[in-house]
Amino acid sequence: MPSISNKGGNMPQSPIRKLVPFAEAAKKRGTQVIHLNIGQPDIKTPQIALDAVKNNTVSVLAYSRTEGSETYRDKIAQYYAKHQIEVDASDIIVTTGGSEALSFVMGSIADAGDEVIIPEPFYANYNGFATANGVTVVPVVSKIEENFALPPIADFEKLISEKTKAILICNPGNPTGYLYSAEEIAKLAELVKKHDLFLVADEVYREFTYEGRTHQSILTHDSIADNAIVVDSVSKRYSMCGARIGCLVSKNKELIATALKFAQARLSPPTYAQIASEAALDTPESYFTDVIEEYDQRRKLLISELEKIDGIKVGKPSGAFYCIAELPIADADHFAQWLLESFEVDGETVMVAPAAGFYASPGLGKNQIRIAYVLEEKQLLKAVRILAEGLTAYTGK
Amino acid sequence: MPSISNKGGNMPQSPIRKLVPFAEAAKKRGTQVIHLNIGQPDIKTPQIALDAVKNNTVSVLAYSRTEGSETYRDKIAQYYAKHQIEVDASDIIVTTGGSEALSFVMGSIADAGDEVIIPEPFYANYNGFATANGVTVVPVVSKIEENFALPPIADFEKLISEKTKAILICNPGNPTGYLYSAEEIAKLAELVKKHDLFLVADEVYREFTYEGRTHQSILTHDSIADNAIVVDSVSKRYSMCGARIGCLVSKNKELIATALKFAQARLSPPTYAQIASEAALDTPESYFTDVIEEYDQRRKLLISELEKIDGIKVGKPSGAFYCIAELPIADADHFAQWLLESFEVDGETVMVAPAAGFYASPGLGKNQIRIAYVLEEKQLLKAVRILAEGLTAYTGK
Ligand SMILES: Cc1ncc(COP(=O)(O)O)c(C=O)c1O
Ligand SMILES: Cc1ncc(COP(=O)(O)O)c(C=O)c1O
Repeated sequence: MPSISNKGGNMPQSPIRKLVPFAEAAKKRGTQVIHLNIGQPDIKTPQIALDAVKNNTVSVLAYSRTEGSETYRDKIAQYYAKHQIEVDASDIIVTTGGSEALSFVMGSIADAGDEVIIPEPFYANYNGFATANGVTVVPVVSKIEENFALPPIADFEKLISEKTKAILICNPGNPTGYLYSAEEIAKLAELVKKHDLFLVADEVYREFTYEGRTHQSILTHDSIADNAIVVDSVSKRYSMCGARIGCLVSKNKELIATALKFAQARLSPPTYAQIASEAALDTPESYFTDVIEEYDQRRKLLISELEKIDGIKVGKPSGAFYCIAELPIADADHFAQWLLESFEVDGETVMVAPAAGFYASPGLGKNQIRIAYVLEEKQLLKAVRILAEGLTAYTGK
Repeated sequence: MPSISNKGGNMPQSPIRKLVPFAEAAKKRGTQVIHLNIGQPDIKTPQIALDAVKNNTVSVLAYSRTEGSETYRDKIAQYYAKHQIEVDASDIIVTTGGSEALSFVMGSIADAGDEVIIPEPFYANYNGFATANGVTVVPVVSKIEENFALPPIADFEKLISEKTKAILICNPGNPTGYLYSAEEIAKLAELVKKHDLFLVADEVYREFTYEGRTHQSILTHDSIADNAIVVDSVSKRYSMCGARIGCLVSKNKELIATALKFAQARLSPPTYAQIASEAALDTPESYFTDVIEEYDQRRKLLISELEKIDGIKVGKPSGAFYCIAELPIADADHFAQWLLESFEVDGETVMVAPAAGFYASPGLGKNQIRIAYVLEEKQLLKAVRILAEGLTAYTGK
C-alpha cells in the first residue's frame, strides 16, 4: 500500500473534531446538545445578498477572473474607503473564503522551515495552513489576566530570527475577542518595519466591536504599506459563511503578483458566491447596527453570567463573538467530553471548545474553553447555567 | 521591504497569461479576437442546476460539512454506480473545483522533494500545485505521432526512484484529447501496484468521449483500490466552471482521512454551488447526448479543416475538447503573439495557446499549439481559416 506524506500525517485535526462523536452519541441518546463551540453565526444573511442569487441571470456558469470580478473588486475598494482604508481594485485578490487568502499568504511569504510569529491563543486553522506550507508557527503568549492584550514587544523581539518572515495577528481575535488598540497596532507597525517582516492581519471580524471602540486596520499605516497584508472575509460580516468568499489585500505589488500565481493555479473563486457578496456590500447600515447590538447584548449577558461562576476567570472580549473562560478544573478536554457523555440538565447539555487547541505552546490553555456567542440570549443563558451546574457536578463541590 | 518566498518566486505563470496583454491591445485596436485558447465551454449549464439555485430557500448561508453535504455525496456515489464505479459517500470529499482536489492530493501523498511522474504534455496547472507543495514533476514524453498514447511502461520504470510517490494521468487528456484504452489503464495499474505508488487520475472530462469509445476509470480496478485516487469536477461535465465544485475519490481510507485534514483547515466547499451541483446530477441523459454530439461535430470539423493546412500535424483527439497541432514554424509563442499583434482577416484574428507550457521538458512542444473546440462550428471554421492564412503569411510562403 502506498504511504501518505509526512506532511499529511502532521496536519493538525480541528480541536473540536474529537468531541464530535461524543456529541453525536449524546444526540442519539436523546440529549439535546447546545453548541457553544462553533463560529457559525445564527444571524440571518442580508436579504439583498440572498435575493441577488435568487434573481441571478446566469445561463453559462463560467469561471470568473482569477482575481475576482472587476465590479466586485471595485466595490470592495469602495467599502474599504468608507473604513478609512485607501486601496484600489489592483490591491485586492478575491479568494475562496478568508481561508484561501491565509493559504495564499503563507505560500507567498514563507518557504519550508521559515517561521511566522503568532500571539497565542489563535485561530486553530493557522496551524493547518502553516503545516501545509511547511511553515513553523512560533507562538508568543498573551494572557487571560490582560484580556489577551498584545504581549510586550520585547517578547516578540526575543523570538525574531533569520527564519522569521511575518507576524500574524487576528484583530479582533478568535478565540480571544480582544480588539487591539491603535497604540498596539502602531507598536507592531514599528516592529515589522524595524525587522523587515510582513505584518499579516486577519480582520475578518472587523465590524464586530463593542463599548464604542473602533477597529484599526493595519492598512491605515502608510509607513508599512509594503509590509501589511490583510485577510478578510464575508463569512461573519454578512453571516454568509457558506458563500466561501474572502479577500487578500495589500499595497505590496510584488506580494499581490505572487499571490495571484497561486490563485491562477486554482482558476477562480465561486461565481454565485461573488454575486451574493457583491450585493451584500449594499446591505443597509441598519443591518449592522442591529446585528452588533444583538451580539453586544449577548456578550454582556454571557460575561455577567460567567462571572457568577465560582472560580472562573473570563477574558473580557471587546470584539468578534468569542470569549475564553478559565475553569477551576485541570483538563478542559476531559471536562468537555464528560459534559457530552455523562451530564445533562432536563435532557440538555452543552458542547464547548477546549482551548488547548488554540495554543501552540504545549500545556497552555488546558483549563480554558472558548465560548462562541452565536446563540440567542435565552439559549445562551440556559447554556451557561448548564455549564455552571456541570462544573459543580464535575468538581464535586 | 520584506521579501516574498522562493516558492512564490518559482510559482509558474499560466502559459497563456503573457499573451493576454497582446489580446487586449488587439481588442483596443478594434480587432475581434476569436479565442481558441480557453477551456471555458460555451454550452449552456443544465436548466435544472440553474433553477435549483434560483429556487433555493437558504436564509442563513451556513458552512456545509467539510467533506460536502451528505445528500450530495450520496448522490455522487449513485452517479458513479451508474458508471460502473462502486464507491460510497465515505470515499468522497467534495472540493472547491477539481483544482482543490489536486492540491489536497499533492499535499496528502508527497513531501517537499518528492516526485510525481506525469505524461507530457499535461494540464499546466499541475505545475502550480506541485510547486506550491515543493513537489517535482517528472515528465515522461508522449508523442503527437501516436496521438499522445500512453508512453511505454519501460519509460516510466526508468524514471521511478525512491522519491517517486505517484503517477498522475489526465484521462481523457487536456491538452491532448487522448483517451486511454482499457489496456493502457491495466498496464498502469500493474505498474503502480508493482512499485507501491499512487495512481492519480484526473477524470474531469470523463463524459466527453467520441467514436463510440467508452471511458475507463481507474476506480474500476479492484486490485489497485488502495493506490487509486480520482480527481473529478462538475466544471466541464455540466458546463458550470464557475460553480467551483469537484471531488476527490478514493477507497484508500488513510488517504481520505489525510485529505480531510487539509479540507478541515479551509472549512467547507461553497454552499450555493453544492446546491447547483447536486441538482445537476438529475440532468436528463438527452443533455449529454446533445452536448457530446455537438462537441463531436466540432471535433470532426476542426480536425478535417486543420489537416488541410500544409505542413501541419494533428494529434487526433477521441476525448475532452482539445487537440494539439504541430505547425511548420519554429516558435509557437512568437507566432501566437504575432497573430495578435500583426495579423487580421477582415478585422478578426485568433488567439491560440502555445503548447510549450504544457511540457515540462525544456524545448519540447515549441512548434505546437493547443486548440479548444468550445466555439460553435461557424466560428470554429472561421478561426481555422484565419489560422491557416496567418501561417501562410507568417512563414512567407
Ligand atoms: C479568525 C478567522 N480567520 C479566518 C476564518 C476563515 O473564515 P472563512 O474561510 O469562512 O472566510 C475564520 C473562520 O472561522 C476565523 O475565525
Ligand atoms: C485537466 C483538468 N483538470 C482539472 C481542471 C480544474 O478544473 P476545476 O477546478 O474547474 O474543476 C481543469 C480545468 O480546466 C482541467 O482541464
